[in-house]
Amino acid sequence: MPDPLRLGIAGLGTVGIGVVHIIQAHAGLITARTGRPVTITAVCARDRNKDRGADLSGYAWEDDPVALARRDDVDVFVELMGGSDGPAKASIEAAIASGKDVVTANKALLALHGQNLAEGAEAAGAVLRFEAAVAGGIPVIKALTEGLAGNAITRVMGVMNGTCNYILTRMENAGLPYETVFAEADELGYLEADPTLDVGGIDAAHKLALLSSIAFGTRVSFETVDIRGIERVTIDDIRHAADMGYRIKLLGVAQVTGRGLEQRMAPCLVPVDSPLGQLPGATNMVVLEGDAVGQIVLRGAGAGEGPTASAVMSDVIDIARGLRLPTFGQPARSLVTPATGRAAAPTPWYLRMTLMDKPGALAKVAAALGDAGVSIDRMRQYRHDEAFAPVLIVTHKTTQDAIDHAIGNCTVTGVVVGDPVALAIEAV
Amino acid sequence: MPDPLRLGIAGLGTVGIGVVHIIQAHAGLITARTGRPVTITAVCARDRNKDRGADLSGYAWEDDPVALARRDDVDVFVELMGGSDGPAKASIEAAIASGKDVVTANKALLALHGQNLAEGAEAAGAVLRFEAAVAGGIPVIKALTEGLAGNAITRVMGVMNGTCNYILTRMENAGLPYETVFAEADELGYLEADPTLDVGGIDAAHKLALLSSIAFGTRVSFETVDIRGIERVTIDDIRHAADMGYRIKLLGVAQVTGRGLEQRMAPCLVPVDSPLGQLPGATNMVVLEGDAVGQIVLRGAGAGEGPTASAVMSDVIDIARGLRLPTFGQPARSLVTPATGRAAAPTPWYLRMTLMDKPGALAKVAAALGDAGVSIDRMRQYRHDEAFAPVLIVTHKTTQDAIDHAIGNCTVTGVVVGDPVALAIEAV
Repeated sequence: MPDPLRLGIAGLGTVGIGVVHIIQAHAGLITARTGRPVTITAVCARDRNKDRGADLSGYAWEDDPVALARRDDVDVFVELMGGSDGPAKASIEAAIASGKDVVTANKALLALHGQNLAEGAEAAGAVLRFEAAVAGGIPVIKALTEGLAGNAITRVMGVMNGTCNYILTRMENAGLPYETVFAEADELGYLEADPTLDVGGIDAAHKLALLSSIAFGTRVSFETVDIRGIERVTIDDIRHAADMGYRIKLLGVAQVTGRGLEQRMAPCLVPVDSPLGQLPGATNMVVLEGDAVGQIVLRGAGAGEGPTASAVMSDVIDIARGLRLPTFGQPARSLVTPATGRAAAPTPWYLRMTLMDKPGALAKVAAALGDAGVSIDRMRQYRHDEAFAPVLIVTHKTTQDAIDHAIGNCTVTGVVVGDPVALAIEAV
Repeated sequence: MPDPLRLGIAGLGTVGIGVVHIIQAHAGLITARTGRPVTITAVCARDRNKDRGADLSGYAWEDDPVALARRDDVDVFVELMGGSDGPAKASIEAAIASGKDVVTANKALLALHGQNLAEGAEAAGAVLRFEAAVAGGIPVIKALTEGLAGNAITRVMGVMNGTCNYILTRMENAGLPYETVFAEADELGYLEADPTLDVGGIDAAHKLALLSSIAFGTRVSFETVDIRGIERVTIDDIRHAADMGYRIKLLGVAQVTGRGLEQRMAPCLVPVDSPLGQLPGATNMVVLEGDAVGQIVLRGAGAGEGPTASAVMSDVIDIARGLRLPTFGQPARSLVTPATGRAAAPTPWYLRMTLMDKPGALAKVAAALGDAGVSIDRMRQYRHDEAFAPVLIVTHKTTQDAIDHAIGNCTVTGVVVGDPVALAIEAV
């Protein structure tokens, strides 16, 4: 029997304990599959005395994750603390400097520092893997990096924040406003300490930026993701969308157009009977499109102890089996800095605006859209009691630039009250 | 730059030419991703003079695949000829005997001879991979063998024959009988030379048997798959199922129960709004369930030049990157011979039978079911003009043994005309 692969686990929250549970429960299965035992040498967390529902007595304890990362009896440093800087970054850097392999679930850290960390790992002959950072238990990093490696990837899409999908699904099913469901989600413990990470689309954008890098051979470019959260989605928008056969999802889309790499994370309308439209609750879905394979759809739990720990173990077992891939699928120094273009790929758009109820208002708006080159597919004005008339418009395919231009035109007509809402309609 | 990885491709049909196209179109991309060029040294097919729509002039030609498999300038033998014996088997054995790695899309060969071939490859230090043999472009072998390697797999399900799914979808959408749509599919070239492989469920059962082996660490056990084809599915069954909120799919299910490994491939009812129920046309879907990850659903094209070639390239690129896994995810000699149990896991069942229109007939059938311990959830007798009354029954959860017993009981009542139809109802 070859030597065991020895893990040091930093962070014993839900995911860390999930990894401990899998290694304790499936030692024989893992050895059969990898040809060598996978063991835990040492662990590290904030509070040594907390009862975490797992027997940790066989593992050495470190208070300092950097010390854990440097231990001679650790082959793989497993970082499950989270945080885009601070101890997570310091300890991963220490592990790499010691030539150790690293497995992490830390999307924020990689979205901001992935390029430097990957270059460092590759220079040190270490691997740095992050299956658990994107879409929980769905093996999407593996599918994209390895399963579709013979393809030029043409587009990546995904619903990758379960909390947002829970909120939007619950709003629709219960007919409740955003604020009420947000408060419910908070009580249920579904939200990050800083809820903007979830509902502001930032967490999902971190994940999209990581997928883009692998898909297009570009350096991670989180700062160029066009991010809009779900905070402005109203129950009326959800109802209007449903009337027209759509659901609203916080959807990420990444593709390369003539103007460069386009990455956006925004609430979008998707057909109610499409795979994305059928996605309930906290489930995640990723759509990968390649020139040879066509469209692959992956669906599964995006968070939780078991699913996320399953993804961590996928990376650990790859290392135990001797698979040594660059972090983003090709050497980090070969990744190119992407030209960034904003939403050049045309889609239909959903527009909602409130008009003053006076003669000619609708005509002015229609003219404003036409002047921007935006052509109307469908328009509905709802019955109303007050002096303000809600109007819905579905456009033919057009670009975000044209929509922004059209909205600017509408605003200067003087008949539009408040800010219009514009959501792209994605066909998948 | 390291030495190129040199392929010898045997079989230049749709998939073989698809692989040639990818390697010619994406040489730079593949080199960036693998760190070494992937080239084709030699090819082999039946007719050297046929125009295949690809430039093969740079490759040596072999008339004999065994000779191709033994060439010193071939590192990986890519078998895309098909056939469960004959030249495919002989040439793969020759490649393994020469210590070469093998990539194949041949499900029939592996379902029948996978154990011996895998043992041979592992003894020779060669790898034998088959991503393209199951569910076309969907990277399901990788997801199961690697992505979910930290899980005890609890169940595998799949719609894995696109032709059958096309036929069933088309019957429902156009309201056409099986025979008509079968003839259409034949004209469109969708059927294998021996159509029983498709509509008889054998092709899909080959694929299920391969997935089972990886999932449960068992020797491939194709001969114990309980196989029923779609030939007996009528347009009436499809309509009745739709009336009750179901669609009929040729669905494979593999799981380990108290009685052993249960593998069945049969037409089943699935909820119309479930991921499987929403699966259109020739698309494939595989559902993987693990104790940590929960349920993962994978969807994509199950056949065709691009998707299948994409899967072949996934294996080739794994080899170029140095990943050397046993064929079924753990050493072939460590796979156990499964105890085989038949359909011990209870499900609801759909029963259709035709009764003679005389007093007490329905009561006799209800009593016959009760005597077998089968409890009725819903029953419908349709209006009818003739002396025979069509009756539909949905049972509560029960085993296939109980259903077989109940059908035997019904038959001896003397009021049932012809053979009853029994289809399991799967919740996913």
